[in-house]
Amino acid sequence: MAKGIASREENYSQWYVDIIKKARLADHSVVRGSMVIRPYGFAIWEKIRDQLDLMFKETGHVNAYFPLFIPKSFLSKEADHVEGFAKECAVVTHYRLMSNPDGEGLVVDPDAKLEEELIVRPTSETIIWNSYRDWIKSYRDLPILINQWANVVRWEMRTRLFLRTSEFLWQEGHTAHATEEEAIEEAERMQEVYATFAEEYMAMPVIRGTKSESEKFAGALETYTIEALMQDGKALQAGTSHFLGQNFAKAFDVKFTNEENKEEYVWATSWGVSTRLMGALIMTHSDDEGLILPPKIAPIQVVIVPIPMPSEEVDSVALQIMKDLKAKGISVEYDADPKNRVGFKFAEHELRGIPVRIGIGKRDLDKNQVEVARRDTKEKSLTPLENLSDYIEKLLVEIQDNLFTRALEFRKQYSTVVDTMEEFELAIESKGGFVYAHWDGSAETEEEIKNRTKATIRCIPQDAEEEEGTDLISGKPSKRRVVFAKAY
Amino acid sequence: MAKGIASREENYSQWYVDIIKKARLADHSVVRGSMVIRPYGFAIWEKIRDQLDLMFKETGHVNAYFPLFIPKSFLSKEADHVEGFAKECAVVTHYRLMSNPDGEGLVVDPDAKLEEELIVRPTSETIIWNSYRDWIKSYRDLPILINQWANVVRWEMRTRLFLRTSEFLWQEGHTAHATEEEAIEEAERMQEVYATFAEEYMAMPVIRGTKSESEKFAGALETYTIEALMQDGKALQAGTSHFLGQNFAKAFDVKFTNEENKEEYVWATSWGVSTRLMGALIMTHSDDEGLILPPKIAPIQVVIVPIPMPSEEVDSVALQIMKDLKAKGISVEYDADPKNRVGFKFAEHELRGIPVRIGIGKRDLDKNQVEVARRDTKEKSLTPLENLSDYIEKLLVEIQDNLFTRALEFRKQYSTVVDTMEEFELAIESKGGFVYAHWDGSAETEEEIKNRTKATIRCIPQDAEEEEGTDLISGKPSKRRVVFAKAY
Repeated sequence: MAKGIASREENYSQWYVDIIKKARLADHSVVRGSMVIRPYGFAIWEKIRDQLDLMFKETGHVNAYFPLFIPKSFLSKEADHVEGFAKECAVVTHYRLMSNPDGEGLVVDPDAKLEEELIVRPTSETIIWNSYRDWIKSYRDLPILINQWANVVRWEMRTRLFLRTSEFLWQEGHTAHATEEEAIEEAERMQEVYATFAEEYMAMPVIRGTKSESEKFAGALETYTIEALMQDGKALQAGTSHFLGQNFAKAFDVKFTNEENKEEYVWATSWGVSTRLMGALIMTHSDDEGLILPPKIAPIQVVIVPIPMPSEEVDSVALQIMKDLKAKGISVEYDADPKNRVGFKFAEHELRGIPVRIGIGKRDLDKNQVEVARRDTKEKSLTPLENLSDYIEKLLVEIQDNLFTRALEFRKQYSTVVDTMEEFELAIESKGGFVYAHWDGSAETEEEIKNRTKATIRCIPQDAEEEEGTDLISGKPSKRRVVFAKAY
Repeated sequence: MAKGIASREENYSQWYVDIIKKARLADHSVVRGSMVIRPYGFAIWEKIRDQLDLMFKETGHVNAYFPLFIPKSFLSKEADHVEGFAKECAVVTHYRLMSNPDGEGLVVDPDAKLEEELIVRPTSETIIWNSYRDWIKSYRDLPILINQWANVVRWEMRTRLFLRTSEFLWQEGHTAHATEEEAIEEAERMQEVYATFAEEYMAMPVIRGTKSESEKFAGALETYTIEALMQDGKALQAGTSHFLGQNFAKAFDVKFTNEENKEEYVWATSWGVSTRLMGALIMTHSDDEGLILPPKIAPIQVVIVPIPMPSEEVDSVALQIMKDLKAKGISVEYDADPKNRVGFKFAEHELRGIPVRIGIGKRDLDKNQVEVARRDTKEKSLTPLENLSDYIEKLLVEIQDNLFTRALEFRKQYSTVVDTMEEFELAIESKGGFVYAHWDGSAETEEEIKNRTKATIRCIPQDAEEEEGTDLISGKPSKRRVVFAKAY
């Protein structure tokens, strides 16, 4: 166990916060429920963001930016949406402060009251569809495939760094289509983009599925989700993509003239992932020594440490290794700081989750070798200097693969198929994880199971096989199993 | 004059708005003073942002993210800062809405009043220095070189797309240093980064200088600025970098232990540029036909148009040209849409400011040539297909240089050296532009000139030669000329 980090077994929540604080990923802010994303945490977020942005652009999307403030009346235009989002939000009521006439400091100027209050966006469907009304006239204007990277605010009562904060960073895609089929195809495509990103870049296996009625996005006809499993056996919804039907088009009166010259309402999707992915990343791979980062998401992939201290010879070897690695597009740092000892450095780089560490010592150099340590398995090996960069390049791929395989193994181990409520409760209580059970599709069963076990339906999995069975509560027939879990 | 665009001579302000609307850069939003940045506008902003981000990182900076909301009391902690920023700002007073008990829609829940109001950040010195107090203990923790890309809100009464909007996008660097010299060096370095970016990427010549007392940032000891000249003879402040002394360290009690083990207050800088640069870009280069973009900032550098219509032969030549251009890192689009005519396409691509257009027609192809048109000079030439991509690559450099030279020529033409108030008034009224005049350093002269002519001191130029002279108003001695102009 690293200094100042609780062990996972002892206190999982504390371990999570300790990792974030000790690895300097984020801090709590003075403003309740807000966080400061520190440079190292932000560098990881930049890797996530840049890769996703590339994938969005490759699938034909463009970025834009819509206002932070939404007129209060907009939120009530779409009936379901208002239920989901109009409750806990930050409300701007005034636009000016003044010196306190009765003493020190500043007070709100009562004369500067807004006619209509403004809401800090909790999500942007309303303000965006209000613009789409002006932009869309004919089928020639469709599709619109827009994404925005933005901050949003939801006034959460119980917050947790990265997982649930009042303000968070995210991207929100908002697309407009001429046909229902095209919109559904888009929503499914973006679910797949998210799943590919989660698995290939974050090394985090996910279940692709759709949400039950009660877990759907407020205003959606269908919500596609990717669900990941954390090391404590709880599920985490890592990204969602919504088929919105014509709900927002109707709420904001967005029509287009089709090829037959008839007016129709426009079809919509929206989809998003957020800084919550940072929490998922931490809880999928890290251990009691600190963060473990998949090489494809690590801001620094390799660190070189002189053992015990830098020297002319060590420096020159280090510089050559750095040059070779950089030529292969591998990011590398040389930690030659003479103020810190080797042991301290090793612990620090483990804490920060740097995938590969190269130790360069005089004795090894005499044998033309260095010590290579991988963060995921903590294995160390003496490796020849010759072709070292080829070796490291392959090792990074191996680490990336190993992290995915390990997480997949974990998920297999923590997935249980059950046929009775007793088995269900035993599985949820004794080991947690994903529980596959039959469900008749009713809200009653969902509710009853939630009340009894705190587990909810994470999704109706996309690849579920047709299989006859009976609902755990009602005993009614069911055609396939769905995935239950306690969730973040 | 392009369809729907006012000419600059006729109505400069209208021309500016027309360009933005017609080229689909941005729209007004329903929320007063806010804007929607449309995909093409945002793509230009991304080019600006990505290049600046690279230059910040090359000078040792890292990105982070601090909260949107600032506790009201923070704004009054630094005496000058409160004067400058605590007036017109968006104030969050409540955190919940509820269904209207007396009718339709939503109302603010009176029970959800915040104990202390939150301000939507107008700039982030206060909230950031509040974090720095926790992060800085010793000289080993310094320097901190952090930047953030964020949205900020200043409740402007008179707004203008890109130039002055209530919400805008920007970057704000906030650095902390152990010594005064180091902080000043940093502030000067960032001014130079901004100047280099403006001149080499935006092709926009700027005057580097410092601000007079009255034009300084609220809380700064020195404000370094870059000032550009727009085509209507008005100046535009394009970026500022501030040496903040120990003001914020004192206000937020941020001390460090120096190498002699003594406690000292930390030294600070902050620096920023915003989406205002989009306005500067438009007003520096564009003409009555639309936008003109410097190649280094253009999201699409080359467009290929089949004349009059696509054909198998034209397509295959176009694809080959695209491949060759892309191999050189040149962005290119093939506009093969059969629904639009050639004339419409030409006007559209001119409007969008695409630097180079390649027209491919059957007759020219038979002679192994294509028509190459440059947006800046509107020159067209028949160019051999052989080595076309080399030709285009050179042409893009030439266009970039020409735009800078042209803007520099314009600035020379609209720079006047004056020695009397009569000359000053004549220069400002008859042609506008930059007016170089002696100034005794007093606020009275500044004020008097502003009242009489609306011109303000844009900066005390960095490269001003020492020269004896007398103040235009007071007649007192002056050692150098400063730059006056009417400004945006």
